[in-house]
Amino acid sequence: MSDLHKKLTKIKMVITDVDGVLTDGSIYKGSNGMELKRFNVSDGAGVAIARAAHLKTAMISGRYSDATEERAKELNIEDVYNGSLNKIGPYEEIKSKHNLKDENIAFIGDDLIDIPVMELAGVPIAVNNAVDSVKEIAIYITKTNGGDGAFREAVTWILNETNTYEKALIALRKTIDQS
Amino acid sequence: MSDLHKKLTKIKMVITDVDGVLTDGSIYKGSNGMELKRFNVSDGAGVAIARAAHLKTAMISGRYSDATEERAKELNIEDVYNGSLNKIGPYEEIKSKHNLKDENIAFIGDDLIDIPVMELAGVPIAVNNAVDSVKEIAIYITKTNGGDGAFREAVTWILNETNTYEKALIALRKTIDQS
Amino acid sequence: MSDLHKKLTKIKMVITDVDGVLTDGSIYKGSNGMELKRFNVSDGAGVAIARAAHLKTAMISGRYSDATEERAKELNIEDVYNGSLNKIGPYEEIKSKHNLKDENIAFIGDDLIDIPVMELAGVPIAVNNAVDSVKEIAIYITKTNGGDGAFREAVTWILNETNTYEKALIALRKTIDQS
Amino acid sequence: MSDLHKKLTKIKMVITDVDGVLTDGSIYKGSNGMELKRFNVSDGAGVAIARAAHLKTAMISGRYSDATEERAKELNIEDVYNGSLNKIGPYEEIKSKHNLKDENIAFIGDDLIDIPVMELAGVPIAVNNAVDSVKEIAIYITKTNGGDGAFREAVTWILNETNTYEKALIALRKTIDQS
Repeated sequence: MSDLHKKLTKIKMVITDVDGVLTDGSIYKGSNGMELKRFNVSDGAGVAIARAAHLKTAMISGRYSDATEERAKELNIEDVYNGSLNKIGPYEEIKSKHNLKDENIAFIGDDLIDIPVMELAGVPIAVNNAVDSVKEIAIYITKTNGGDGAFREAVTWILNETNTYEKALIALRKTIDQS
Repeated sequence: MSDLHKKLTKIKMVITDVDGVLTDGSIYKGSNGMELKRFNVSDGAGVAIARAAHLKTAMISGRYSDATEERAKELNIEDVYNGSLNKIGPYEEIKSKHNLKDENIAFIGDDLIDIPVMELAGVPIAVNNAVDSVKEIAIYITKTNGGDGAFREAVTWILNETNTYEKALIALRKTIDQS
Repeated sequence: MSDLHKKLTKIKMVITDVDGVLTDGSIYKGSNGMELKRFNVSDGAGVAIARAAHLKTAMISGRYSDATEERAKELNIEDVYNGSLNKIGPYEEIKSKHNLKDENIAFIGDDLIDIPVMELAGVPIAVNNAVDSVKEIAIYITKTNGGDGAFREAVTWILNETNTYEKALIALRKTIDQS
Repeated sequence: MSDLHKKLTKIKMVITDVDGVLTDGSIYKGSNGMELKRFNVSDGAGVAIARAAHLKTAMISGRYSDATEERAKELNIEDVYNGSLNKIGPYEEIKSKHNLKDENIAFIGDDLIDIPVMELAGVPIAVNNAVDSVKEIAIYITKTNGGDGAFREAVTWILNETNTYEKALIALRKTIDQS
């Protein structure tokens, strides 16, 4: 069993940054504080696939936004930290709440403020449009950009590398067939 | 008459997925449950061309969204199933309501949950940005991505292959000239 | 003087389609009939340049949208026909109101319903993303796509070909300096 | 010390245009005067980096928009001129308020109305998608387009050229660690 394979079999949770990972970094601003973010339906499927494979999911965003809350609620993601420039605190809380170690966590990031948690997480993942210093510490760099399905690609990669992707798809299809 | 030509002359209805086919998969989220989707005016013309060629149209979306209802209403598409992860049920209802067989239906999809209906429909079509397993079961893969006019391309392809495109355009122009 | 140059010196008004020319064809739909279109600030500058060169501007859209009205109002474009699938009527009204002949009009279009007016206008222009049959009847095809500044490119092209671009810029800068 | 290096060490403030620089020029219009602009979270990080390096920031936009006000407020940018086609006035006001000379100012622009101030500012910068006449008078042309992080790239370039980027990042990380 390769080192990478060993690392990946220990992953029990995927924590993701929001802006630049689940989105392309765009923030649409309007009158009266109106703000929109562009998420991707493909990452929603990625969350469903992760769940079918018994991988937990969480979000830690440096910037507060109602849009993040709405998207998390829609995807039934419980652990959402929204507006924490310092991501170490939320990261440790999530670990402790779920009784996890660093080696159980994959973290997907794109920018400078993700580096401190990416240095802790067992499997740090960078999106294709991440800044260079984030890419340098990542074990895997997605082929897709943030907002174009990078989260799903990261989940798919973990499951493929641990030979559990097909099993997850079968479980997912069963859930859907019974819905 | 080629096999493909024979298959296509039997098509009486085009059913389409929504996210990833009529859109590029983007979901714009804001405060208070606000949600937008990016449709394309070109697919609206595609619906008009289909109608001029007496092809029926319908939508089956795995995810509920007001935006889908609004777009369907605008395009006068009556058969809209919105929020059905399991698409077999809606597909069979549509077939039965319009007294159609599988061989009369073309289905345009992009993701895993489209596969079960694409395995039934006479002419399964994948958009260019579909996942690999959807492309593998498709008879035709559009050159355009979802949200960039892939629906219209699929309709145009069916009509061109059955030598009915020009006739449809003439019918459409007559309708417009009289409007 | 070349034929093209002669044609272009006669142009007194630029009429433009909206979806697919001033936008990339995207229609953002939300709840309660909410709809957005993506215009480009660069085309706003294009309208200002046209005005500085004493070129009139007008819009004829096949599809009704509040967004079109808002954008026209912002740019002080008076002649806006919004929701006319048959564009011949509005085109003739504009001509008659401004006492113009076909040879005085450049029309920028992208899709099938623009063809009848493009066959009448002295200078039919297609955007880069226009359908083939529109490109075939165009005298000029913009390098930019609709929504990326194609209107401004068309105006700049007319002024450059008639050696009046620099003069228009000087007039525009004077207006701005005095504002 | 090279000429460029000398020029850049004198920079104390970065003034930026809005449409086409902090955005890609897109203006999303809807009903009832609704308007959105697409900003980028990466430029928000750019403002934070500039601040950590004691570089002041300001915005001068030719076109009034609530979206600009909202984005400036979010980033704590105090000097915002919104709706000034003639940018010389605001530029001189900012200079005088902060007791700066032309040589202390870098200005990032993309279009014709930015030229007069870019001719005054010590370091005129053009974004990749700027019009040719703006690029011609720029000392630096960003590799990224407006709305894709061009502001951040410009700030990073100034700091890298003056060997102060790493110091700024350390200061920024300290601020975040203590937050």
